[in-house]
Amino acid sequence: MARIAILGATGYTALELLKLLARHPEAEVVAATTRQENRPHINEIHPSLTGLFDLRCEAFTPEQAGKLCDIAFCCLPHTASMEAVPQLLDAGCRVIDLSADYRLKDPGVYETWYQHVHTDPTRLSTTVYGLPELYADKICSAELVANPGCYTSTSILALAPLLAEKLIEPTGIIIDAKSGISGAGRTLKLSNLFSECNESVTAYGIGTHRHTPEIEQVLSDVGGSSVHVAFNPHLMPMDRGIFCSIYPRTIGQHTKSQLLEVFRNFYAGQPFIRVVDHIPTTKDVSFTNFCDITVRFNRDQLVIFAAIDNLIKGASGVAVQNMNLMLGLDQRTGMLR
Amino acid sequence: MARIAILGATGYTALELLKLLARHPEAEVVAATTRQENRPHINEIHPSLTGLFDLRCEAFTPEQAGKLCDIAFCCLPHTASMEAVPQLLDAGCRVIDLSADYRLKDPGVYETWYQHVHTDPTRLSTTVYGLPELYADKICSAELVANPGCYTSTSILALAPLLAEKLIEPTGIIIDAKSGISGAGRTLKLSNLFSECNESVTAYGIGTHRHTPEIEQVLSDVGGSSVHVAFNPHLMPMDRGIFCSIYPRTIGQHTKSQLLEVFRNFYAGQPFIRVVDHIPTTKDVSFTNFCDITVRFNRDQLVIFAAIDNLIKGASGVAVQNMNLMLGLDQRTGMLR
Amino acid sequence: MARIAILGATGYTALELLKLLARHPEAEVVAATTRQENRPHINEIHPSLTGLFDLRCEAFTPEQAGKLCDIAFCCLPHTASMEAVPQLLDAGCRVIDLSADYRLKDPGVYETWYQHVHTDPTRLSTTVYGLPELYADKICSAELVANPGCYTSTSILALAPLLAEKLIEPTGIIIDAKSGISGAGRTLKLSNLFSECNESVTAYGIGTHRHTPEIEQVLSDVGGSSVHVAFNPHLMPMDRGIFCSIYPRTIGQHTKSQLLEVFRNFYAGQPFIRVVDHIPTTKDVSFTNFCDITVRFNRDQLVIFAAIDNLIKGASGVAVQNMNLMLGLDQRTGMLR
Amino acid sequence: MARIAILGATGYTALELLKLLARHPEAEVVAATTRQENRPHINEIHPSLTGLFDLRCEAFTPEQAGKLCDIAFCCLPHTASMEAVPQLLDAGCRVIDLSADYRLKDPGVYETWYQHVHTDPTRLSTTVYGLPELYADKICSAELVANPGCYTSTSILALAPLLAEKLIEPTGIIIDAKSGISGAGRTLKLSNLFSECNESVTAYGIGTHRHTPEIEQVLSDVGGSSVHVAFNPHLMPMDRGIFCSIYPRTIGQHTKSQLLEVFRNFYAGQPFIRVVDHIPTTKDVSFTNFCDITVRFNRDQLVIFAAIDNLIKGASGVAVQNMNLMLGLDQRTGMLR
Repeated sequence: MARIAILGATGYTALELLKLLARHPEAEVVAATTRQENRPHINEIHPSLTGLFDLRCEAFTPEQAGKLCDIAFCCLPHTASMEAVPQLLDAGCRVIDLSADYRLKDPGVYETWYQHVHTDPTRLSTTVYGLPELYADKICSAELVANPGCYTSTSILALAPLLAEKLIEPTGIIIDAKSGISGAGRTLKLSNLFSECNESVTAYGIGTHRHTPEIEQVLSDVGGSSVHVAFNPHLMPMDRGIFCSIYPRTIGQHTKSQLLEVFRNFYAGQPFIRVVDHIPTTKDVSFTNFCDITVRFNRDQLVIFAAIDNLIKGASGVAVQNMNLMLGLDQRTGMLR
Repeated sequence: MARIAILGATGYTALELLKLLARHPEAEVVAATTRQENRPHINEIHPSLTGLFDLRCEAFTPEQAGKLCDIAFCCLPHTASMEAVPQLLDAGCRVIDLSADYRLKDPGVYETWYQHVHTDPTRLSTTVYGLPELYADKICSAELVANPGCYTSTSILALAPLLAEKLIEPTGIIIDAKSGISGAGRTLKLSNLFSECNESVTAYGIGTHRHTPEIEQVLSDVGGSSVHVAFNPHLMPMDRGIFCSIYPRTIGQHTKSQLLEVFRNFYAGQPFIRVVDHIPTTKDVSFTNFCDITVRFNRDQLVIFAAIDNLIKGASGVAVQNMNLMLGLDQRTGMLR
Repeated sequence: MARIAILGATGYTALELLKLLARHPEAEVVAATTRQENRPHINEIHPSLTGLFDLRCEAFTPEQAGKLCDIAFCCLPHTASMEAVPQLLDAGCRVIDLSADYRLKDPGVYETWYQHVHTDPTRLSTTVYGLPELYADKICSAELVANPGCYTSTSILALAPLLAEKLIEPTGIIIDAKSGISGAGRTLKLSNLFSECNESVTAYGIGTHRHTPEIEQVLSDVGGSSVHVAFNPHLMPMDRGIFCSIYPRTIGQHTKSQLLEVFRNFYAGQPFIRVVDHIPTTKDVSFTNFCDITVRFNRDQLVIFAAIDNLIKGASGVAVQNMNLMLGLDQRTGMLR
Repeated sequence: MARIAILGATGYTALELLKLLARHPEAEVVAATTRQENRPHINEIHPSLTGLFDLRCEAFTPEQAGKLCDIAFCCLPHTASMEAVPQLLDAGCRVIDLSADYRLKDPGVYETWYQHVHTDPTRLSTTVYGLPELYADKICSAELVANPGCYTSTSILALAPLLAEKLIEPTGIIIDAKSGISGAGRTLKLSNLFSECNESVTAYGIGTHRHTPEIEQVLSDVGGSSVHVAFNPHLMPMDRGIFCSIYPRTIGQHTKSQLLEVFRNFYAGQPFIRVVDHIPTTKDVSFTNFCDITVRFNRDQLVIFAAIDNLIKGASGVAVQNMNLMLGLDQRTGMLR
């Protein structure tokens, strides 16, 4: 039974993580941290967890939390995470970081997109990127895993097979991404209010969204040449789900069936990737760790569609999947079995 | 006071039309038709209209309805409309057809996309396309106006200025369109059920959506050369609203400000087009006849964003705008004044 | 043309008011106030108003605003309103106050429910309660009108006829009220976040909701004896709408038809009350100033159902209705005509 | 490993059941039936199940299905179920019937509320009502379990402790119930369309809803005298969840704390009942088998609040809970562990 700590237990990703871990047969949550000093019970922060944990949230330092656990999930905001992670590792635990702090290899790129100097730059090159469908081997033995962003996972999973097989151009890829509102977190912002986002669709972060360099870094690694995407996120009036419609330029002539076959081969044996014939819906993957993918031709234009639950496959589910790999368990443990 | 008839009063476009006409100072609804023989009061079909009209729905023939009115709004489904419109015109009234039957100039194109031989083909070439921002002069004197589709209006209004000015390529235009569910009409289909579409996003009709040839026909007319689009409609879990994210290829180098200026010049004096600096939201245009448009560059990629209410500017609002023009009234009558 | 000022222009009630006034033929908005010092254009605060007003929000004092206008709508929060209203009146304008500050006649009751000493207590007894269906005569000549709360209007309109006719007991009335989220205003609270309230129903403020004494005060006035209600508000995952299900104890035996007739007589000639045979829906009154009411017997238990749009009939629409009365106009001006 | 058959696999309750059984360690789905003759794969009917089952839906007779399985879940509509259940039992399997056909003890009451003569009346008196918190002992050894209705379970669980302890009157109980739309099933009806129910609240079935006699029958059994409720169901614009606000008349004087203690004692050891201090939300129990309950006093009026997920605790989750009892397993198997 692995001992688990969760740093930053108040947000939505921590909540989803706790729900998944509540049913996990090989993991026990031994610590959850908060900045609040009054030791609130986890039920007070997340009433939906009532009855599932006998756990108070403590104002532990990362060092204290690290000493209590085998694996720490770091659910702190970016910049806070890079302060905590070195202390956790020093305390002897392994770490799955759900923030963006260790996803980018180049501290200069981090600084450009996050407007913050990275204070732990030397660790970036050795951190394992936590997308199990691409990097399972490295994840198994990693001390520190950078859990991917939600838009990022969807985009990478939808493009990796065709880039790896050189069937699409690495540049000029248009990603039109649609996300439910929980992707914005539990932050008190006007744009997160129900009365602002319900019954409304809009776009945001055009050219500035921080998942852009993450997508390009991983896909460049997969494709073997520099990948360039125009990433365009949109907000949809729903809780959960990301739906990516991706418009790449094809190399050569291929049929829908041939491309679906490329996807099926690439993801053979992957329990959470479903290459489907129909167009996916976010509802079909909601509350699951699945990523559903298909392709279509709109006359000459290839379109790739991919759907995930942003809180599960886009955050806490893939984190558990990573934990399973780190613990030598079947990836599906606690989710499909 | 113009006498108005509405053919096919049971659907959502007829309902919106009636709500708009209830407040119109120069129009009086004198007839509404249905196939039901029992003469239901309009309130029985649309309880939200209670108190607004003293009107029963009659099983009038088009000829009967046409004789009672100055202007008939034809809200029948396609193929039914092409049967009714000639009879309405013969009866001496002018017609605004909200179906797709008279939008395409070429009966062969109609047959290809609608799988139905057009039974009134000779009238197609002379029918006026009812997009007031482009064709107001012709609409004023038209006997028959083909009211545009909802996706169509949004896409055309978002692209026309840049095509007219030759600032974007006429081919390879990617339109990623997001619509609320009311666009699917009041039809009993599994995919229209609340429990199927709520909390879900998906795409549909890729390469086969019938608004494609309509968009291409009008934009080719505007741009002076053959326009080709990849039109990709998506469904959003909300009642109303269309949000188009359009990815064209630019000709030459231009700034965001320059392109916004092109839009502002092109639409100078148009009361329902708002060229805005911020990214529009469907909520901002909900229950209005406005179309909000802006542009962004995502690094090199131009993106045009446009938002409308699909039932108003995408259907019944533009129909009233057309009626106003046909009656020699200010376009805004009954909507902004 | 009446000159209008709006104090506190940033919230949802001010936004709805501005949308209504934009189409009002006899009112011109000449001033809108905000605490922000930088004179933001009204479009910057409410992008949906783009094109409707040429108006900057000024940091006017109530005195300054009052001198510019004939009628001031005070959209300030409670306790702020009681500071501004006396200054507005002193400046010579008439005032419609949308806060709760002048709704209760008894300053002691105000203090009990609002935990704040009333600083303008002598004016309470002479303030006119702005429910036009009950107090139109007084509203016409009022200097200060206290615009009712949203739950309050719905509950009062649903109960007044039966209390006036002594057909139900004045005590033991259970009101189960369901509201859309916009009723909570544009406040940055965790419970107003989309991800908290979407796909969720809950109750709140049981025994403590401040609309309770307001309902009881007005209904006691109508019924001639002390009315006592158990008011139970609930939140529904939607933007707009209040639906009240009210369970009174009947006096004597009556049929559904007889009670509907009592309602129809009581509200004869009222343009915004629709006594209907079917059970109302909030959708049918959404974006309108209507209140739809019906009754049912559930075996022996009488149930009254009433539905309004909380932002229109529950706030800004009734405010315009009150303004119309104060200006000697038809109540429907700017809304139904 | 118990062999499971599902009769009527196309609806929402069958879908939820299959999702739960996919993770159940002691149950294997060996058959699913449909009236379609073409043997559709379960994925074709429910794309969200892709990858979970290697299963085709067969047009099995009840007898055929019954011979293949140890336990059959009957998800057929009412009246179809009473045809199938006897055949299933004759074939030697045990049955959990999710329809209403075996819930009522008295065939006359069934006929009154369902307008259909019961064709298997003699079995009614011996059928076990499948509410595990009340009848676990009988369920363990039952051959036929009548799975409760969704409103029913919520109402009964919220009232049983106080009726059992004679703390509330058995008559005059007002139940104001709010349900998500999935409660209406996957039926093609106008009122189930997204564009009809989204952004709307209404009531329905006042005095005629068929869960009424079921609530009264079970509560009369619990309370030892004839219970009479006014059951008032409402529709909320969300997928899942039932929220009951219940207004009983108290016997004697009690505090909130005392009543909560009564609930906690009554449900001691029940894994799926959470008696909470805060007011529940449907979101907190969504996608779980929990029923959250609390009480409040609104001045003198007692209010009981209870929330469940109508598809889980209201249908398929409690069905699995019943199956667990019938198989001698921990009730939580496949849901909390």
